[in-house]
Amino acid sequence: MSVPRPNPLLSDRDVDFQLYEVLDTAALCALPAFQEHSRDTFGLLLDSTRRFAREVLAPTYRPMDAAPPVFEHGRVRVHPAMRSLYANMVDLGLLTATRPPDVGGQQLPLTVHAVSSAYLMAANLSAYGYLGLTLGAAHLLEVFGTPFLREQFMAPLYRGEWTGTMALTEPQAGSSLADVKTRATPSPDGSYRLQGSKIFISGGDQDFTDNIVHLTLARIDGAEGGTRGVSLFAVPARRPEAGGFVPNDVQVAGVIHKIGWRGIPSLVLNLGESNDCHGWLVGQPGRGLACMFQMMNEARIMVGLNGVATASVAYQESLAYARERPQGRPGGTRDTARAQSPIIEHADVRRMLLRQKAIVEGGLALLLATSTQADLANHAPDEAARQRAHLLLDLLTPIAKTFPAEKGFESNALALQIHGGYGYSSEYLPEAWLRDQKLNSIHEGTTGIQGLDLLGRKAVAGGGAALQALDEEVRTTTARARAAGVEPAWSDALEDALQQASALTLELGARGMAGEVDAMLRHSADFLELFSVVAVAWRWLAQAAAAKEALARGAANDAPFYEGKLAAAQYWFAVEVPRVPLLAHLCRTGEDSYARMHPDWF
Amino acid sequence: MSVPRPNPLLSDRDVDFQLYEVLDTAALCALPAFQEHSRDTFGLLLDSTRRFAREVLAPTYRPMDAAPPVFEHGRVRVHPAMRSLYANMVDLGLLTATRPPDVGGQQLPLTVHAVSSAYLMAANLSAYGYLGLTLGAAHLLEVFGTPFLREQFMAPLYRGEWTGTMALTEPQAGSSLADVKTRATPSPDGSYRLQGSKIFISGGDQDFTDNIVHLTLARIDGAEGGTRGVSLFAVPARRPEAGGFVPNDVQVAGVIHKIGWRGIPSLVLNLGESNDCHGWLVGQPGRGLACMFQMMNEARIMVGLNGVATASVAYQESLAYARERPQGRPGGTRDTARAQSPIIEHADVRRMLLRQKAIVEGGLALLLATSTQADLANHAPDEAARQRAHLLLDLLTPIAKTFPAEKGFESNALALQIHGGYGYSSEYLPEAWLRDQKLNSIHEGTTGIQGLDLLGRKAVAGGGAALQALDEEVRTTTARARAAGVEPAWSDALEDALQQASALTLELGARGMAGEVDAMLRHSADFLELFSVVAVAWRWLAQAAAAKEALARGAANDAPFYEGKLAAAQYWFAVEVPRVPLLAHLCRTGEDSYARMHPDWF
Repeated sequence: MSVPRPNPLLSDRDVDFQLYEVLDTAALCALPAFQEHSRDTFGLLLDSTRRFAREVLAPTYRPMDAAPPVFEHGRVRVHPAMRSLYANMVDLGLLTATRPPDVGGQQLPLTVHAVSSAYLMAANLSAYGYLGLTLGAAHLLEVFGTPFLREQFMAPLYRGEWTGTMALTEPQAGSSLADVKTRATPSPDGSYRLQGSKIFISGGDQDFTDNIVHLTLARIDGAEGGTRGVSLFAVPARRPEAGGFVPNDVQVAGVIHKIGWRGIPSLVLNLGESNDCHGWLVGQPGRGLACMFQMMNEARIMVGLNGVATASVAYQESLAYARERPQGRPGGTRDTARAQSPIIEHADVRRMLLRQKAIVEGGLALLLATSTQADLANHAPDEAARQRAHLLLDLLTPIAKTFPAEKGFESNALALQIHGGYGYSSEYLPEAWLRDQKLNSIHEGTTGIQGLDLLGRKAVAGGGAALQALDEEVRTTTARARAAGVEPAWSDALEDALQQASALTLELGARGMAGEVDAMLRHSADFLELFSVVAVAWRWLAQAAAAKEALARGAANDAPFYEGKLAAAQYWFAVEVPRVPLLAHLCRTGEDSYARMHPDWF
Repeated sequence: MSVPRPNPLLSDRDVDFQLYEVLDTAALCALPAFQEHSRDTFGLLLDSTRRFAREVLAPTYRPMDAAPPVFEHGRVRVHPAMRSLYANMVDLGLLTATRPPDVGGQQLPLTVHAVSSAYLMAANLSAYGYLGLTLGAAHLLEVFGTPFLREQFMAPLYRGEWTGTMALTEPQAGSSLADVKTRATPSPDGSYRLQGSKIFISGGDQDFTDNIVHLTLARIDGAEGGTRGVSLFAVPARRPEAGGFVPNDVQVAGVIHKIGWRGIPSLVLNLGESNDCHGWLVGQPGRGLACMFQMMNEARIMVGLNGVATASVAYQESLAYARERPQGRPGGTRDTARAQSPIIEHADVRRMLLRQKAIVEGGLALLLATSTQADLANHAPDEAARQRAHLLLDLLTPIAKTFPAEKGFESNALALQIHGGYGYSSEYLPEAWLRDQKLNSIHEGTTGIQGLDLLGRKAVAGGGAALQALDEEVRTTTARARAAGVEPAWSDALEDALQQASALTLELGARGMAGEVDAMLRHSADFLELFSVVAVAWRWLAQAAAAKEALARGAANDAPFYEGKLAAAQYWFAVEVPRVPLLAHLCRTGEDSYARMHPDWF
């Protein structure tokens, strides 16, 4: 019963605004690494991904959701569309877009790559998933691999001939990577023989490329316990031997029937059932987690973008639906002689749309600001600037990963709600995007883990230097907003909220130093929520400033766009920012209801 | 991979506590209507439904979710288990439990019926759905039907021989019942011929009973427009004719593929395609909505119970999982020589469990308090007491309907989150309960409609008499809590919050009287949220009081249960109640971001 209607996935107008009016992404071209580029070359990637995402990729979403991969005779068969889709995504240059020329890349800023990728994610999250995982695996090999590994494994991954995976999780360990048990026994040929079982391996098998490289955590025989005994290995599905390739001993032992991301399989893999699983060490022994975590910021930015993209496509769908679906008459009139109004005329529907807009566009702004710090951390010419950007990147990453996952889920539920009874049916897509979104609070570190990471590590990093850098960034934004004539109370509120957050961090950090680690970390979830509200307020203030500047320049025929930005910023400062003192109070007092809740009391 | 484990559905200990320690449900037996009853007879129903729900009904949930009804050759075939399940539920006496002896009932309090039904809902929401709908249809016929209708249609429904439905919604009207178009043409035999199309008709066809009666809204030829032209009809699938039954002209025109409640079909029904759909008027012409709405409080209480039950079964599942799943070691130790701890040892997992407990048990307490007001509204001996209870029932109903739907959805998502990657798979049930829960914010009046109902009608009812009655109830509870030695700050906070809510209501009501209806109703969603926080705080304070009383009596071997109650109450007062001033501020100031957000600005 659903009427197919083109969905823009993300608003191009908004993306351009964010890149070139809120941020000055073109200014990145002043960095030596990006000097070959310009807004024009950014536009080439962006335009081609937009077109591909809308015209080719989006129409495959529903069929791939409806026909998930099949496990038969030991192999996984994925949707037949994936073969050409993957080749198309490779042709767009997305695997190597940010990589340097020596591995075949264009060395574009991550910021541009990220926002381009977001269109693919919004169109078909699972299809993008294969690409994102391959990119991560190849990047690890690029940074930590020997020349042999780069040639043998990285090169075909970057060329798009193979795909890659991350094989971290084990059934008995879950998020506790210190408990990884997979064993790696050195072999006289310099490689290793692996034995163990991995679970939740996304893209762990498929039938559209000739080979798959699993970047795998394992413990070399005799290594110490805990995280320091864990090493990283490249484990191909087919291994190089005698000038060709032979099957490696990697068996698909089961398929997990995921509720979303249904176009990409999540698998149980058994390594070395016949003791013939060859793996090659990547990086130093015992440095497996360190290698992984060096890539973790970018992986988590990608999860944040998944969340923004998935909330965005649903927001756009519910917006179009609200504009065309007539029902009732606002203002309480019961004069049924009058035609029914589109539901967007109802205040409560506009509330649900504006909340979605605030989450989606605020989330995108946060992700782009975080990506820009990644670009600076990697490519700023002087060391101090790189270090500062790295601190900011570290600080923002758990927020940029979690905010879209958690508030994006709420936003996706609102898109479903706007569709009423139709939203509750699988003839309409909001329910599918709601399913997709739920994974983002779980994979690449759960929301609980992000809270511990933010409070236990990132916010207290550099003896306060990370927060100091954020404070400088915020003050740059409030200065811009004040100069642009943005409502001054918003700048005051943001500075005050960040001040509260900083003072709170110092106080909790001191508690940790005093050995009261439990009390320090108890409200890490509320701490993360608090920082999310503040970080998104920062990005909404920046958007409000850019909107005011544009209106002052006399952007009259674009005035509705900018007025919408100001209304959404107003919403965030009115509805979300006032929650900061409540959250800070919980963290500061160490409210102890669940701390003292004995397991037997439930 | 999931390990089947008995799920208690709801905690019996909690239910008994709520009925007999928080409330004094046995005291209802002092009312003449219930004088045949006692705690013992209540226990008979409760015990038998508990046993049936756990042993028979719960095991059918997964197979029914996996094999939804099939539409073939114009008829709907439902899961074969439904035939015996429905007969079993009828045998438990649930169709007539609250009805008087003259229709075959036991005349039990709704409070007892509601809590008994909650076990069935938690076990298998769809299976219960057929019963709930039948009960609603039969009750309408009992109250508004002629002797002919009661004998012809009501009696077989109450005997469990047939099922019933509510056929309100039409494709072009949705929630706007004023726009119902289905026509009813008087026939010389005193019945009517109906023509029109209905959508989202739950249980609109099935193959386990001989007949179905659709309680249908339609417009008699020549009736005025709007809601006052709408009448109610009984439209059977097979109509009585010449001493037997012949097919009536009711055609299944389509199946909506719902994402949850997958054991009961949601259908498009076409009435009178061959102009041979016979219907019988129920109640007065033009009073169709009035009849429906007279039953609406009980229907919405049942939706609230659906929400509580669905959140409860998931909470119980995640609690058991958290107690048995080892992962990591709390307190930051990385000593992997130590065994991993069950995840309930992690503070953030306990946070997620306690939040679920607060929502589930707070929601149940609210539903039982509301049901008790329904019992008093129906059966209190003097008119003033009935009126007062009716005002309270009206006031509490939109809250009792919405709180479990909205916060229950959040609670269900937490249950999934606690299961980590496993929660994201359909091998585990939390994802299924999450899908089931989502309907509750949509059917029987969306959350948006409940907000308008609360602020626009119920809170301002009786010139403030409804709020006055709530204030008295709350003060009775705070007095009890203070006497029991409950933390006095909680009683103070509750009284203060209700005071704010009442003052706000007066202020907004005055705005409405002054003709500023839009400004009055703009934040109806926040107003409903505010009242939900307050109402649940009231019920948590009552639970804390009962727990303190029990501990003072020396209930030593049950102390963990009562300590858990106190911790959950503490959580609600620390985390939720402080939000009241923020919500009140939004309502009072009429914060206008989405009011001024023009549809073109998005």
